[in-house]
Amino acid sequence: MSVMEISHRAPEIEFLLADTVERTRRLLGLGDDAEVLLLQGGGSLQFCLIPMNFAAAGDPVDYVDTGYWAQKSIREARALGRDVALAASSADQDYAYVPDAASIRPRPSARYCHLISNNTVEGTQFHQLPDTGVPLIADMSSDLMSAPFDPDSWAMAYAHTQKNIGIAGVTLVVLRRSWLDAIPDGLPAMLDYRTHSAHHSNFHTPPTFSVYVTWLMLDWLDREIGGLTAMGAINRQKAGTLYDYLDSTAFYQCPVQPASRSLMNVVFTLPSADLLAEFLAAADQAGLAGLAGHRSIGGCRASLFNGVTQESVDHLVGFLDAFAGQHQPGRPGLLSTQPDSPSQPVNA
Amino acid sequence: MSVMEISHRAPEIEFLLADTVERTRRLLGLGDDAEVLLLQGGGSLQFCLIPMNFAAAGDPVDYVDTGYWAQKSIREARALGRDVALAASSADQDYAYVPDAASIRPRPSARYCHLISNNTVEGTQFHQLPDTGVPLIADMSSDLMSAPFDPDSWAMAYAHTQKNIGIAGVTLVVLRRSWLDAIPDGLPAMLDYRTHSAHHSNFHTPPTFSVYVTWLMLDWLDREIGGLTAMGAINRQKAGTLYDYLDSTAFYQCPVQPASRSLMNVVFTLPSADLLAEFLAAADQAGLAGLAGHRSIGGCRASLFNGVTQESVDHLVGFLDAFAGQHQPGRPGLLSTQPDSPSQPVNA
Repeated sequence: MSVMEISHRAPEIEFLLADTVERTRRLLGLGDDAEVLLLQGGGSLQFCLIPMNFAAAGDPVDYVDTGYWAQKSIREARALGRDVALAASSADQDYAYVPDAASIRPRPSARYCHLISNNTVEGTQFHQLPDTGVPLIADMSSDLMSAPFDPDSWAMAYAHTQKNIGIAGVTLVVLRRSWLDAIPDGLPAMLDYRTHSAHHSNFHTPPTFSVYVTWLMLDWLDREIGGLTAMGAINRQKAGTLYDYLDSTAFYQCPVQPASRSLMNVVFTLPSADLLAEFLAAADQAGLAGLAGHRSIGGCRASLFNGVTQESVDHLVGFLDAFAGQHQPGRPGLLSTQPDSPSQPVNA
Repeated sequence: MSVMEISHRAPEIEFLLADTVERTRRLLGLGDDAEVLLLQGGGSLQFCLIPMNFAAAGDPVDYVDTGYWAQKSIREARALGRDVALAASSADQDYAYVPDAASIRPRPSARYCHLISNNTVEGTQFHQLPDTGVPLIADMSSDLMSAPFDPDSWAMAYAHTQKNIGIAGVTLVVLRRSWLDAIPDGLPAMLDYRTHSAHHSNFHTPPTFSVYVTWLMLDWLDREIGGLTAMGAINRQKAGTLYDYLDSTAFYQCPVQPASRSLMNVVFTLPSADLLAEFLAAADQAGLAGLAGHRSIGGCRASLFNGVTQESVDHLVGFLDAFAGQHQPGRPGLLSTQPDSPSQPVNA
């Protein structure tokens, strides 16, 4: 029988769960004060569990508004009747940046301050963290395990696994053990973090195959890649290759301010809607999938999660340059090596 | 890219979700008034979603108490402050039966009457359904798609997929569309059935690989098995083989009353704790896995879900008989064909 078939009470599955937690602890450098849970429901379920577990109705809870996903997290806290305030927002420039660490000012009474560490839709990412005295919670669904992690910065961090550490079905939650003591009684068992903590993430049948894939990914990160510092260097190089190319052309534009640019999701635009449609069709033909921007904002987006290689990024840049060369009369591709397309300066 | 890798907004995944729903509709014979949702969180999450969605605090909700899982469902409704009453209970005989359909009497004012259609721990199953005028909700986690389904009997039925229709990670929910209109506003998005209905079970990233396995299982049920009537006949034959053998011996005892016996989980006991331990070790050696009873009650349990073949049941019966023959001096195995072990009557 495979991991998909054996009982979730079998020693093999108990080992799988415990070792997935252990691998997470090692990679993230967690101490004994940190609890690791493997849950279902994605980041979206966390949006309601966090206010339910860590604040009562009417309690102050602060959020950093960085766009699409941040607003979803805020909506859930408001719907639950918590007193939500914005600790910072980048709405003034259409979310083309993330607020500077120093500008993030939650109310001192806030139970927590929540932010989305990497914003997949807008292509922004926090590269500096605020130190506000208020416990910080991060949705790291799209960048946990993509770079080194500082356990001391966070009261809680969580990530669904399908971006950087596996397939859909599991959500990894890291939180301070002392926080569990503050959870109010009376929550439904499945919605109370203490239930999953007490049962070592085996209160009910876990999604065993998805956990197994994450277990494999964590081993790959640890032993093949060499840990999160090495992974972070690879991801910086991948993103650097792409941003450097985009910044070298006038054909493509990256709307995100340089200091806030995401290493995971590189957002860019083309000169016109017609060219965008042609670009996406040509990319698809070239085997470059998923380059359409999020349906809420359009444009283009290249996602460079852990599984994407430097070679793939190089291939993408080659494609971008060839496409630009074909659609700018008199401006052959910058990277073109064809004899009839001599390289020439940008904006020539 | 495989189903594990492509975006959940890709046409392939939208097709997968829609066709899984369509296959469910066909197999269960659902009409246009039935909604089918693919959720996460197992049956356990449904235990709190049902009272949250279909009753307000203080509202009457009725439950049938048939043991371990029923009590878990009842606990969640009570914790949420609903006015819980038992429409029937089999606690008086230690859950060795399920209440007769005629004895199930929910309050006429009850928002719903909830029962567990098959009780995996106790080895009991409802073979007749009450017709009470109160909308009936069933946790069919361990018998949905194991036999014909009567859509008119149920206001809602739900099942995690890992027993009869796939692997862990997905929960199939079937409910009357008109019920969605009665859900109160203000629930967290992820905990409101209307969210998942409005987004065709793609509000957030679904567990695509688990859905894919269910999609394959539903096709197998439809085209290889020939539908739920055929599956039900196979399951009746499998369970009949095992119960007939158990009833023919004094060595093994089935504690469940015949009219309530589960076709999915056959519970039985051995004469002593020592023999039980020896039996489980020998079964494991013989490649017969998972025969230990649920940790809450001990004993033995053979689970005969859709994936178990008649051949496996025959193999199990052969093992049971050989073990009984070896441990009852002077009573060789009933089914033994060895020349030195002539068959002889039970209790001889």
